[in-house]
Amino acid sequence: MEMEHFWKSITPHMLKEPFDVALYRIVMEECGSLATEPTGVTYEEVQCPGTVKPAIWCRPVSVSTPPSSLSSPPPPPPVILYLHGGGFISGSPASHRKLAAHLAKHAGTHALVLDYRRAPEHTFPSQIDDVVAAYKWLTEDQGIPHTKIALAGDSAGGNLSVATSLALREKGMPLPAAIAGFSPWLDMRVSGASYETNRDKDALAKPEMLPGVIQTYLGGNDKADEPLVDLLRTDLKGLPPMYLATGTSDILQSDAETLAKRAREAGIDVELETPKDLQHIYVCLAGNAKEADHTLKSAGAFIRSKMGL
Amino acid sequence: MEMEHFWKSITPHMLKEPFDVALYRIVMEECGSLATEPTGVTYEEVQCPGTVKPAIWCRPVSVSTPPSSLSSPPPPPPVILYLHGGGFISGSPASHRKLAAHLAKHAGTHALVLDYRRAPEHTFPSQIDDVVAAYKWLTEDQGIPHTKIALAGDSAGGNLSVATSLALREKGMPLPAAIAGFSPWLDMRVSGASYETNRDKDALAKPEMLPGVIQTYLGGNDKADEPLVDLLRTDLKGLPPMYLATGTSDILQSDAETLAKRAREAGIDVELETPKDLQHIYVCLAGNAKEADHTLKSAGAFIRSKMGL
Repeated sequence: MEMEHFWKSITPHMLKEPFDVALYRIVMEECGSLATEPTGVTYEEVQCPGTVKPAIWCRPVSVSTPPSSLSSPPPPPPVILYLHGGGFISGSPASHRKLAAHLAKHAGTHALVLDYRRAPEHTFPSQIDDVVAAYKWLTEDQGIPHTKIALAGDSAGGNLSVATSLALREKGMPLPAAIAGFSPWLDMRVSGASYETNRDKDALAKPEMLPGVIQTYLGGNDKADEPLVDLLRTDLKGLPPMYLATGTSDILQSDAETLAKRAREAGIDVELETPKDLQHIYVCLAGNAKEADHTLKSAGAFIRSKMGL
Repeated sequence: MEMEHFWKSITPHMLKEPFDVALYRIVMEECGSLATEPTGVTYEEVQCPGTVKPAIWCRPVSVSTPPSSLSSPPPPPPVILYLHGGGFISGSPASHRKLAAHLAKHAGTHALVLDYRRAPEHTFPSQIDDVVAAYKWLTEDQGIPHTKIALAGDSAGGNLSVATSLALREKGMPLPAAIAGFSPWLDMRVSGASYETNRDKDALAKPEMLPGVIQTYLGGNDKADEPLVDLLRTDLKGLPPMYLATGTSDILQSDAETLAKRAREAGIDVELETPKDLQHIYVCLAGNAKEADHTLKSAGAFIRSKMGL
C-alpha cells in the first residue's frame, strides 16, 4: 500500500517547528492526490447561506432524478453532506472532492462537500455551526427531506458528523437518515487504548500531535466537557444509524470502537468495520486500493438502505 | 486580483535553500486552487501507451458526438492535448484539470491533460517524447484526425506545445490544427527585455530563478542550441496557427512577443493577446477573474475556428 510511503514523504513538512499553519494546509491538500478521478461525475461550486466559502456539489450523472408526475417538479436527488478531515485546521472540498464523489456513486446520491471554517482562525463550535447552516439550506431551501440526507466525513469530519447530529437534536431539528464516519476522530481526551497500541503502526497520526491540534480546535482548555466535544461520553440517544470504519493500525481505532459500543447501548443501529492493518484515513485511497473501495461501497449500501433507496 | 497575494503566500516555501524538489511540487500544486470548478464536465484517468503516469480526460457533457449515419460509428470529439506548466519540474493533471476543462468548454472540445515526465528525474527531451506519444495515441489509436487536435499549455507547457509541434514536423507526422500558449516560457537564454523591465511587476517569476530551472530541465549546459530548446531562434516554418497570450507584467512577456514575431515572419497565422498588467500564468484564475476567462474564451474561439468546428 502506497500510503505509508506517502505519509513519510509529507509528514516532515507538516511537523516543522514552529508549526506553520499555511504550510500544513498546503501539504495536507496532497491527500487529494491519493484517490483516482471518479468517472461520470460533474462538479459545481455553491455558496450555502450561513457559510463563508463555496462548497462543491459532486453530481454523478448516473444519479438521475426519479420519475414523477407531469404536474409536479421532480424531487431533488438525495444528498450526502460530506465533511472533510484535516484536524479541523486543514483539508478542503478540493482535497476531498474525489473521495466524496466515489462515496456518492456507491450510495446513489449527490454529495455536497462543505468548506467549513477552520481553526485556528475559527474555533469550536464554528465548524458545527457551518454544518448546521448547510443542513438547514439543504432541508429548508433546497427541499431535500431529512430522510434523504446523510452526514459523512473522515477523521475530524467524522467528529463533525456526530457533533452536528447532536446539535440538530438539541435544536429540535429533524435528523439525517444516517451518519458515516471513516477513521473518525472523536476522543478529545486522547485516552483510547489504541493511541498506544497502534503508535508504531500508524505513519500519519501520532498521539503526541493531538493535544496541540485539540487546543487549536477548541481555542482553549475549558471546553473538553462540552457535550458537542466530549463525544464518547455524551448522551447519544436518538442519533441516526451509524456506519463506522477504522483500520486496526489506526491510532484512533479506539475512537470508532468506543463510539460504536456507546451508540449501540443507546439503541442506535451501528455497523462497524475494522479492516485489518489499515492506517488512519485509508479511504483517501478511493479508487486506488481495494480496501478503501470496499469501505466506501459498504458505507454507500448502508446509506442507501437507511434512505430507503 | 488575488494572484499577487497568493504567490506571496507560497513563494517563500518554493524558494527555500537548499532547493527541495518534493516541497516545490507540493506547493506548486496549489496553483490548482485558483480556478473555479467548471460546471458540467466529467473526468477519467487514462494511461496513454508510451507514457508513465495516467493522463486525465476532461469531457464537457455539452460536447456531444456529432450526428452520423447509422452504419458508421460516430466520430470521436475533437481534443485539446493540454500540457501543464510548472517549470518542467512541477505541476500535474490534478493542478491543471480545471484550467484545461474551462478551455475545453470554450473550444467545444474534450481535453486530455498529460502527466509528462518531469525534471530532474527526467530531462529534455523526455517531456517532448511523452507529448509525441500521447499525440500518436490520439491520432493512431483513438482515431482523432490531426485536424481535430490542438496542443495547448501554460508556461513550460506553452514551450512543450511549440517544441512538440517541431518534433512532429521533424518526424514527418501530420501537425495539429492549432497551438495555444498561455504565458509561454520559450527563451532558454533568459535574454528578453521583459526579464528586466517587468522584474518588479511579477510576483511569481523572477529572472534569477530561471537558469537553475533551465539547467534542471536540460540536464546540463550543452543543449541550449538544440532546435527543440532554442525555440526563439529555431526554424518555425510550417508550424500550426498559434494563439499566444502574455500579460504585460509577466517577466516572460518578451517570450510570447518574440515567438509571435518570428512565427509571423515564417508565414504562420498568429493571434497575440497582451492583456495589461497581468502576471505570469494569470489563466490559472479561470472562472475567478474576467481577464483569465477572456483569454480562454479567445483561445477557445481560435481553436474552434482552426478545427473548423
